[in-house]
Amino acid sequence: MPRKVDPRQRRTLIADALMRVAADRGLEAVSLRHVAAEAGVSAGMVQHYFTTKDEMMAFALSVVRDRGQARVEAAVAALGADPQPRLLLRTLLAALLPLDDAAREDGRVALAFLSWTALHPAAAPGLRPDTARLVEFIAGLLPRPPAPPAGRAEAASDAAAGLLALVEGLGVYLLGGQYTPAQATAALDHQLDLLFA
Amino acid sequence: MPRKVDPRQRRTLIADALMRVAADRGLEAVSLRHVAAEAGVSAGMVQHYFTTKDEMMAFALSVVRDRGQARVEAAVAALGADPQPRLLLRTLLAALLPLDDAAREDGRVALAFLSWTALHPAAAPGLRPDTARLVEFIAGLLPRPPAPPAGRAEAASDAAAGLLALVEGLGVYLLGGQYTPAQATAALDHQLDLLFA
Repeated sequence: MPRKVDPRQRRTLIADALMRVAADRGLEAVSLRHVAAEAGVSAGMVQHYFTTKDEMMAFALSVVRDRGQARVEAAVAALGADPQPRLLLRTLLAALLPLDDAAREDGRVALAFLSWTALHPAAAPGLRPDTARLVEFIAGLLPRPPAPPAGRAEAASDAAAGLLALVEGLGVYLLGGQYTPAQATAALDHQLDLLFA
Repeated sequence: MPRKVDPRQRRTLIADALMRVAADRGLEAVSLRHVAAEAGVSAGMVQHYFTTKDEMMAFALSVVRDRGQARVEAAVAALGADPQPRLLLRTLLAALLPLDDAAREDGRVALAFLSWTALHPAAAPGLRPDTARLVEFIAGLLPRPPAPPAGRAEAASDAAAGLLALVEGLGVYLLGGQYTPAQATAALDHQLDLLFA
């Protein structure tokens, strides 16, 4: 009697294949046929789990994001109980940067997806609330701003939104080779110096 | 007698077609055939000017960058003579953000290229020195840092590298819809508040 297939596991197998294709050859090479060949399954099997390319993309992006989340959680857990907010934030943000091979591969795929979703917003409906939650979490770790300049009430979330954008930009420049890892971490530390001054 | 063709002009016509294809349908749709159809020329003509896809990409990216440069120069020129460093910097950086339709279209293409070059570094050999020059220029406009923390000598260029990364990240989040234009400009202004405090 054949073993029952776990649909989530099969989907993840296919998404992993998709990500290898995207990381090695770019999103333009991602097709039902290529992904099926990479996963070692039939094109019909891929189509059974993912009806459209958008759907395949959205699921693969969620896998990349889950892996990023796991990296962040492992780094934060290694800090032990009750780390200082600055150390916690530094650890969390550095874990988001593509500084090793695994993170670089995921980063390249994430960048390809961001570029894809700039054209196909429906492919990543969760991106906006995810980012908003992360900005809110970062804002909670930053020191309270002294007094907001006249007419601006949102200094804490502006600072958090800026910090997250800075980390995203550092990631882009690390992947493109414009910044070295040393430059990127120095820029991050300098920003934390500014925010925790 | 047929009019003499300006090769630069013909290349630009083809690159414009490439960018329309990339902006409308993504880089995966960019091919000799599609670009030729969009430009209204033969595939052989495209091949005459661009031997490889990398070469076509690199030229189109340079066109996007030149347009960005022109936008920045126009915005800065509108400030008149001797603007304050903060105002000059704010104007320059805001002009880099995809805040209107033309800048959004170029931004989508630029993001697609960044994603492409993360896989094909040879496609954009000028990216690294261009970024380094921009970081240096920004560093020259920032106030001198008070005293670098022990062991760190590069505070001015760290600040500039961070500021440019922040703007790049804001651009990515504007294109993906994670940040609104109001959020992005508030985050930029907050960063300038920090740096010019």
